[in-house]
Order: sequence, then structure tokens, then C-alpha cells
Amino acid sequence: MIQHFTGLSDLSAQQIHSLIERAVEFSSIDRQQLKKVLPHSVIANVFFEPSTRTRISFEMAAKLLGSEVINFDLSNSSVKKGETLYDTLRTLEAIGCDAIVLRHSDDRIFETIKEKFTIPLINAGAGRFEHPSQGLLDLYTLKHEFGKLEGLNITILGDVKHSRVAGTMIICAQKLGLNITICAPENFIPAQLSANCKLSTIENSLPSADAVMCLRNQFERHELVDFDAQAYHLEWGLTNERAQMLPSHAIIMHPAPINRGMEIADELVESKQSRIFQQMTNGVYSRMSILEWILKGTL
Amino acid sequence: MIQHFTGLSDLSAQQIHSLIERAVEFSSIDRQQLKKVLPHSVIANVFFEPSTRTRISFEMAAKLLGSEVINFDLSNSSVKKGETLYDTLRTLEAIGCDAIVLRHSDDRIFETIKEKFTIPLINAGAGRFEHPSQGLLDLYTLKHEFGKLEGLNITILGDVKHSRVAGTMIICAQKLGLNITICAPENFIPAQLSANCKLSTIENSLPSADAVMCLRNQFERHELVDFDAQAYHLEWGLTNERAQMLPSHAIIMHPAPINRGMEIADELVESKQSRIFQQMTNGVYSRMSILEWILKGTL
Amino acid sequence: MIQHFTGLSDLSAQQIHSLIERAVEFSSIDRQQLKKVLPHSVIANVFFEPSTRTRISFEMAAKLLGSEVINFDLSNSSVKKGETLYDTLRTLEAIGCDAIVLRHSDDRIFETIKEKFTIPLINAGAGRFEHPSQGLLDLYTLKHEFGKLEGLNITILGDVKHSRVAGTMIICAQKLGLNITICAPENFIPAQLSANCKLSTIENSLPSADAVMCLRNQFERHELVDFDAQAYHLEWGLTNERAQMLPSHAIIMHPAPINRGMEIADELVESKQSRIFQQMTNGVYSRMSILEWILKGTL
Repeated sequence: MIQHFTGLSDLSAQQIHSLIERAVEFSSIDRQQLKKVLPHSVIANVFFEPSTRTRISFEMAAKLLGSEVINFDLSNSSVKKGETLYDTLRTLEAIGCDAIVLRHSDDRIFETIKEKFTIPLINAGAGRFEHPSQGLLDLYTLKHEFGKLEGLNITILGDVKHSRVAGTMIICAQKLGLNITICAPENFIPAQLSANCKLSTIENSLPSADAVMCLRNQFERHELVDFDAQAYHLEWGLTNERAQMLPSHAIIMHPAPINRGMEIADELVESKQSRIFQQMTNGVYSRMSILEWILKGTL
Repeated sequence: MIQHFTGLSDLSAQQIHSLIERAVEFSSIDRQQLKKVLPHSVIANVFFEPSTRTRISFEMAAKLLGSEVINFDLSNSSVKKGETLYDTLRTLEAIGCDAIVLRHSDDRIFETIKEKFTIPLINAGAGRFEHPSQGLLDLYTLKHEFGKLEGLNITILGDVKHSRVAGTMIICAQKLGLNITICAPENFIPAQLSANCKLSTIENSLPSADAVMCLRNQFERHELVDFDAQAYHLEWGLTNERAQMLPSHAIIMHPAPINRGMEIADELVESKQSRIFQQMTNGVYSRMSILEWILKGTL
Repeated sequence: MIQHFTGLSDLSAQQIHSLIERAVEFSSIDRQQLKKVLPHSVIANVFFEPSTRTRISFEMAAKLLGSEVINFDLSNSSVKKGETLYDTLRTLEAIGCDAIVLRHSDDRIFETIKEKFTIPLINAGAGRFEHPSQGLLDLYTLKHEFGKLEGLNITILGDVKHSRVAGTMIICAQKLGLNITICAPENFIPAQLSANCKLSTIENSLPSADAVMCLRNQFERHELVDFDAQAYHLEWGLTNERAQMLPSHAIIMHPAPINRGMEIADELVESKQSRIFQQMTNGVYSRMSILEWILKGTL
């Protein structure tokens, strides 16, 4: 059976740790050696929602491993002639792509289609559901920082309900022994919380946090009338004042893109405790790990 | 003189058979060897009309043969500043591209410009005129299935008048000994029929067909008021009932994109007799054959 | 300190001549050897304004030197989610790009941001300010034609005020010993002229010109009501009659895209004296020279 990469929920703790370890190895291999990892593969990048980081990160990971990349350009495609997603993906399979990296607005898109494909599908963000390659790079960043995942206290701040990034962390909290605290306005709190997750106030949560994950307000996913960015920042953002409440060893994370001054104070984005751009660097190694596993089955 | 690839009408039956044979060879060469075929070429992909399959298929064929590909992105180009097609193509030539793959809405675009270029132009679809790389993959599919082209009975169903796919088949019917039967509503029948082509009803044609080619309704090329997709399907589509009239050895073809349930019943697209996705696979090998011939003159 | 490539104004005459000489060398190296120059680099192409030539020319230069290219597709990016330019570029840096080729509408964009980056930024056109890679290819074209730059008489014709191409030539006129004569309608004359630049009439200027540079009317940068293209051509364009006034050794240049029949007569674009398409060929070698210098520091 084809091994897809649709969510961290499908993976064991051991598999997640193995992917992270392989990503760490990739971070120290030079580019000449990297090119020999996947020299004859072709990866299709298919994004039905806007993306900078994830698309380019997968493209970079694939190219550095020696693969070719086909960027499927939605705006100039037969989707304009009414072609279905299924037929578009089947076309990429028929044409010889070895894997399809897919972002789509439908939460359950992978469940719906994955059994019909003979090449691996890789989830690059599905609706408000999982975003497992982002989850993996977040876990890589935490493990690299603290040497372990078990027992870490993670505060997630902001639009948790609409965030597939947060969703992915919550899904694997229990499996990996993470303690997750959610601080969010009422309409941003998910309906159900899984084990190892609790609600709290920012003030109660930050002093014992090892990491705080700020989330982007997903304006495109909800209707906010008369939204006041500054008021939101003061009430729910990571302000400079609140950052002072963090222990000195704690790190600041954000999946980006960032609304500077809204969910996080401008000055904190590149502060000493921030790992925001480091997360992006780690993302390339994490995606190399995913691509190698999916294409070579070496986990 | 530069060898362009503008239409199957320019080629002899022998040349077409040679291209197909080379495509068959490409289908069994491994990727490591393929990369040595065109290792230092640069192919420009210039599409002035939407495309999924043809653009990506040429990109895949070029990259697998070891070439670089420049995708000309119309929406972000100097065409927005009023640059003519001629100057855009001359630019690609001046910049060092070795061949230009071009799709354009003008039926006669290649006749108009080809003599002015010192690098080969490759027709990836010109208006309602020829689509020779699609024609070649259709012929490859037929020959691979039946071991020959001569004497095959092909039923073409649907919007023949606006289809450059159908037009290409009709153009080379006599040359290759194909017997073509057209079944279409009156407004979809071309004004002139060439030798080896006749009109008939679906019911009379299918029982003796070796292959039935369904065509996409080209809504973007004609005005249809109050078009009833279901009525069209029942009157002119390949329904499940009609597919029962085909001989058991007959195959079902479609150039895609597909309007499922309109020109063809949903269930038939991936039925046992369908070669629709196989056609796409064959298209990559056919385009390899075209690129090699055009760039190395090895026919 | 990181070496950016933001303008010819930053370079000495000696550096400019060295870049041209290296570009000349690149023009005679075969593709197999070229690929060994920058085999493990990744160049990001980030264009916030439309471009054909410059974007594709940098892509071609990078790929022929063996680099990978990441084309940042603005229309499908997180810029749609409100991401700042700075964060987008920092993302490309974090993800592992070795240099960023950037076109932007802001005249001073490089001054504003360059100190914050640890990878080189390459100016591919900034507002109405510099366009140094175009400047370099123009200088390459002149030096290749006349064996020197010093003492050459260059007539610049047309929309000088809004042209970063003209601006770049004017900036380095004194440094390189070029004598520049500007012929333009009053509203197209820049507010200040630097040394070695003077105003004149077309009729007085052309008979002693070694080269005439026609400029595109930058309609997207100014408001022209009831603009009469033919009247403009007769009064300010390079007409066939005016071209007769040029010395026989003089050459005709244009950065393209061209409005044929407006700033230049249609017939002159590919006339014997024109170097317009040759300029584009030279542009690829000039950009190779820039990329090698910036990435390997070999000047």
C-alpha cells in the first residue's frame, strides 16, 4: 500500500522522532551530497490556497535533494475549464510525478481521495485540519532547543480554532508528552480539547512556558466586523510586556506569515528569544525528511 | 532551414511512424539514461491559453531528457506592457532558448511567424487548427493497442468543429489509413470533411469502432444559450448504454480535461476499456520524441 | 560585509570594466563548462512589477551556470495575506536561497533594507531609480561594438525622466567618460542632469552619435490624456528619416519592451544598425558576471 503523508495523527511517536532525527542529519550534509538523495524523482507542487513558505520550502527541499519540481500553476490551468481536483491529480500521476504536495481548503480532502492514488500524496495544509509538515518543523525546533519533547510546556496564543498549525500540535500533544495551554478569545477556542491540553489566561500560562506559539489571525477564514488590531494586540497578542513574563530559557515561535503588531509585537519577531526565522530554516530539513521517507520508505 | 514542429500535416506517414517508434523506445529507458539525451538544452514553455496536461507534459518530457525549462508566465510579463507576441518570442530566442513550445488562440500563428525564427517552434495547440503533439500521442496510443494504424475504425464523438484534437486526426486520416466516423450535432460538424472521413449516427458507428474518441465541449470557443448538460449527454455523449455497443476490443479515448457526465459518463472515465489516463502517460514519451527530433534532427 | 548589487553608482569604473570583461568571457564558454561555475547555488527571482526579459534573463543566467532558481510567484503568495516585503525576503533567506534578485516599484527599496540581510540582494529594477543589470548589458553592448567606452557619444531619446535605464546610464556617464545627449519633450526631461550630460535637439544630436538609445514610453508611470502615438513618433520617435542622420557606424539600442511605431519606427527594430535583440543576448552574459561576482566574490 502507498505510504501517504497526510497527518501526524497517523504516525507513532517513534516515527515522528525518527523523522526529526533524519531532519537533523540533513541539516549538516553539504549540498553536493544532498543532491544524491533523490536524484531522479519529480515532485509536483499543487497549491489551491496561497502560500509562500510551505510551497517554496518543499520546492527547496526537493531541489536540494536532487529532484525536479513541477509547480502546478492554478491560474493558468485546466481548472479554469472546469476540471475536477481528482482529475488534475490523476493527470499529474499519469504524467510521471513521483509524489504530489497538495494544499487545499477542504479539511477532509486527503481522506476522500488518498486511496485512489498509486503515488504518495503529501499534506501541505488541508483546510482547518492538519498541516503536518509545519507540525514536524515545530517539533524539530522544540527538540533542537530543549533536547527533548516530553514534558515541555507550550502556550498557544490566538486564533487556535482556525489554525491547522495549532490543530496539528494539539493532535500529537498526548502522544509526545507535550503540555499545551491555550490562551484565546472565546470565539477562537476549538469546540473540543484533547488530552494534555488545557485553557488558561496568558498571565497564568507564560511564566511556566518553555515555548509560546503565536498564531496568525486567519482573517480569510472568519468574518470579523470592525476588528480593532490594536485592541486585539493589547488583549490577546504577545506584547513586549507579556514577553517579559516568559522564563529566560523560553522561545517564541510563529508559523508566519506574521501580522506584526497584531498577534505579536513588532520588536519580538527578531528578538533574542524568537525562533521564527529559524523555524523556516528547520522547515526545509523537515520536508527533506518527509520526502525521503515517502519516496524511499526509509523510516 | 530550421525544422519546426507545427503540424502532422507537414509530416509523411513514415515520419509519424518513426516518431511513434522512438516514443515507444523512450517508454522503456530509465531516468538516469534519459537525462543524457538533451543535457544542455533550454526549452521555453509559452502558453497564451490555459493548459494543464500539455504544458506540464512538455515540461516533464524536457526535464526528464535533461533539459532546463523556462516557463513564460504570461500574467507577470511584458505582454502587460503591450509587447507583441513576435517580440516576446524573439526575446526568448535572443536570451538563448533552444526551442519554444507555444500555445496560442490564433489558428494560423505558426504559418505567420515561423520563417522569422532561427530556433524551432513547437505547436502545443493553435486556435482550432492543429494540436500535433496531442495527435501524436493519440496515434501512439492506437498503435500501441492494435499494433498498427492502417484500417482502424475511429469514431469521433462531440464538438468536432471546435476541436483541434479532432482536426489533427482528420488531417492525417488518409495518410495513415484511418477510417474516421464523425458523430456530432449539426453545429459541431466541420464545414468540410477530408478523405477517409464520414458522418454517421452513434448507433451505426460504435458497433464497428476500434476506438471512440470523446471530445470536450469547448464552451470557451462558442456561445451556447441555455445549454442542458444532461440532455446533451443523453443525445450526444458516450453513455453507459452506448458504451455497451462497442466491441470488446475497442478502447475509449478523451484528450481531457473531461466534463464528467457530459461528453462521457462518469463511470467510463476509468473503466477497463478507457485509455484516458494512459494517453497522458503516452503524451510524455511522444513529446520526448518531438523534442529530440527537433533539437537533434535524428529522424 | 555582504556584497549586494544595488547600483552601478556603487561601483568603480574598474569594477564595471571587469564585470564586462568577465561577461565577454562567458559568451565563449560552452554550456557544459558553464554549469560548473555555480553548481550548488539557489537564486530567488522576486518580481513585484511585470517583467519578461529581466526575469527570464536572470533565470537563464543562473540555470546555465548550474544554479537552481526559485521563482517567487507573487499572485499565489502570502503577500495576499498581508505579509511585508521584508518578511518575504527574510523568509527566502531563512529557507536557504543564496541570493535574491528583486524588482520593486520603490526607488529606494535597496537603501532601506540591504543592511538587514546576510545574503546578497541584486537590483533587477527599482522604481524610477537604477536598473544596473540593464546598464551593464548596455555598456557591454557599446564596448563590444566600439572596443571602448571613453569618449562615446550616446543620444538618449524619449521618456528619460521615468526611465531607470536612462537613469543608470546618466549615473555612470562621467565615471566612464561617456558623452550623453538627451532629446526629450519637456515633461520627460529629468529635473537634474549630472556631469557629461546635456540637452539637445534630435537633429543636432544624431549626426555625431555613436549610439542612439530609444526608450519605451512608460505609460504605467505617468498619466497621459489623449496621447497621440503617431504625433509622438513624428516629433520624438526615431523615425526612418531620422535614422538616416546617424553615422554609418552608429548603432540603435532599446531596452525593450518596444512600442513599435511609437518611440521607434517598426522597420528599424531589426535593421542592420539595430542591436536591440543582441542586447538581450548580452544581458544573459552580463547577469552571469553579476551572479558570479556576488556569489563568489571574484572581481
